[in-house]
Amino acid sequence: MNELRKDPILNRWVAILKDSKAPEHYINEYTENISPDSASDNECLLCPGNQHEAYTEIFTIKEDCESSNNHDWHTKVISMIKPVLQIEGELGRKGVGMYDKMNSIGANELIIESPYHNTQPEDLGISHMIKVISTYRHRISQLESDPRLRYTLIHKDYGKAAGEQYKHPHSHVIATPVIPKGIKEELDGAKAYYQYKERCIFCDIVNEELRTGARVIMETKNFVAFVPFAPKSPFEYWILPRRHNCAFQEISDEELEDFSFILMETIKKMGAALKNPPYNYVLHTAPNRIPRKNYWHTLGEDFHWHMEIMPQIAIKTGFEMDSEFYILTTKPEDAANYLKGA
Amino acid sequence: MNELRKDPILNRWVAILKDSKAPEHYINEYTENISPDSASDNECLLCPGNQHEAYTEIFTIKEDCESSNNHDWHTKVISMIKPVLQIEGELGRKGVGMYDKMNSIGANELIIESPYHNTQPEDLGISHMIKVISTYRHRISQLESDPRLRYTLIHKDYGKAAGEQYKHPHSHVIATPVIPKGIKEELDGAKAYYQYKERCIFCDIVNEELRTGARVIMETKNFVAFVPFAPKSPFEYWILPRRHNCAFQEISDEELEDFSFILMETIKKMGAALKNPPYNYVLHTAPNRIPRKNYWHTLGEDFHWHMEIMPQIAIKTGFEMDSEFYILTTKPEDAANYLKGA
Repeated sequence: MNELRKDPILNRWVAILKDSKAPEHYINEYTENISPDSASDNECLLCPGNQHEAYTEIFTIKEDCESSNNHDWHTKVISMIKPVLQIEGELGRKGVGMYDKMNSIGANELIIESPYHNTQPEDLGISHMIKVISTYRHRISQLESDPRLRYTLIHKDYGKAAGEQYKHPHSHVIATPVIPKGIKEELDGAKAYYQYKERCIFCDIVNEELRTGARVIMETKNFVAFVPFAPKSPFEYWILPRRHNCAFQEISDEELEDFSFILMETIKKMGAALKNPPYNYVLHTAPNRIPRKNYWHTLGEDFHWHMEIMPQIAIKTGFEMDSEFYILTTKPEDAANYLKGA
Repeated sequence: MNELRKDPILNRWVAILKDSKAPEHYINEYTENISPDSASDNECLLCPGNQHEAYTEIFTIKEDCESSNNHDWHTKVISMIKPVLQIEGELGRKGVGMYDKMNSIGANELIIESPYHNTQPEDLGISHMIKVISTYRHRISQLESDPRLRYTLIHKDYGKAAGEQYKHPHSHVIATPVIPKGIKEELDGAKAYYQYKERCIFCDIVNEELRTGARVIMETKNFVAFVPFAPKSPFEYWILPRRHNCAFQEISDEELEDFSFILMETIKKMGAALKNPPYNYVLHTAPNRIPRKNYWHTLGEDFHWHMEIMPQIAIKTGFEMDSEFYILTTKPEDAANYLKGA
């Protein structure tokens, strides 16, 4: 089994895979700029009728799907082909000398976003986009009931520089038995603000962004898309719901449609402005139900779910990677203008 | 002037450059895999006799240099060609709506590591390596006396994927008016351990690594090079001094020679094992003299300077970048074996 280890200084957990890759493995990885799987429809693991069907199917949206050429589903969730975390087993926390480790318990699922190899959800139109986002809601709702799991993170990696693993449209679900460090910092930062101001920092940010307007890309009835005041990479933007709610899975059907629309439209704008760049998006939601009750004495008043979208267009220096002091080569207000106008 | 802005949730400062780059600028950046300056000796900005001589020279090591063809220096420090931070001016902290910003005060210097365009310091031999490391000591010693500056960070970016800016051997000095978030977390983590154990966590790590030996790459009289228990990237390694000291600039001459040797030898081993990979190294030292007295009530007992060396050989996924939960595809013990044997 893979194992999880904790860095004793930063209290950051990492996963160590049981089968180590030798140095030779990495050499192509940093000398080539193409995706590992640039296969055609016929060879693609994730295409209908192909190899992925041998893996455990966890969830499928099929309603009103016109069957043709095996494309009889809209979205499908399977267990990850080489899972980093596995659902069976005990946490098994233990010490090793001065260090700490545990078993790699968790969930690691692959969301196949459509049966079509070459078409991203945003190009299939709003009704398909809604099915993708509904799939996200279903997975988070289901995984939060496992008391061993502390956090469920959904993310999409598009393009080689963003860590893409398959060319076929897909996103990932990773549920971890610890709250990952980067997420915990955001929760702690929001909690500190709440304790001082007695208001949600994200609600304040929505108000401030709408007041000045300089960084807003797009608004809908329920959502605002904007470039943050101090982002970590150029052209990064966030989508925040106007209604305060810590948990993404509590989104209403109307909000879900609206969220699908603003995400689809802004991804198209980003694609137009930056010529189809590699990007990541990550859904930031509250920790899972059971631990939330302990961790959050304010019961969700101090956090606000949102999505962060980060084009991976600029290589970071050693200074930035190590110190987290980022150098933004495009001003957030200018980035918002470019995206808004695209 | 550029400006510094603070992320209100994570309390992370970033620099925003005053001249924004348009979307077109980035497109070559992520589609090409070559360094921006792959110029020959004749065109290189940093070669003797070329354009860099128009910039302010801050420090030079010339002793016993045989002059030939203008190569009459060993190492040279100049002001950065497009500085992110500037030395003149007031900090000017102020609020903007709910956010915070300040002027981009600091130092941003370029260390030209040798006059030879195509030869890295580790290939010029130990006497040259010592001059490079002496240059690092000089710059940190000098910059720590400026009361506006809280931290001085020296780093090297080698290869395009590591953010390299020039092909000519060089490293960077960046002194900031705030302690960067990534550095502060390490200081805080080490302080928390000290408060609990009344021992330096890095001293404990040195002892633990020597006791087990499984992750040690190389030992000298004064230093140990090893792969950490839970690193953030495969084949990352650290060099720690055996003697407890928080400040790199207090290194003795004997230790400086020894450090130059172990750094040179391990970089060669990494180059052999991974076939000349892109990498970053970053010198982690205590915050600058004046603020240290306030920030560190334990007066340096709880921190221990060291260097972290990170080959950039694996692209990170959106999950890793966002959550800081890293997935290690080579076990630290195996990485140490590959490096040791190289």
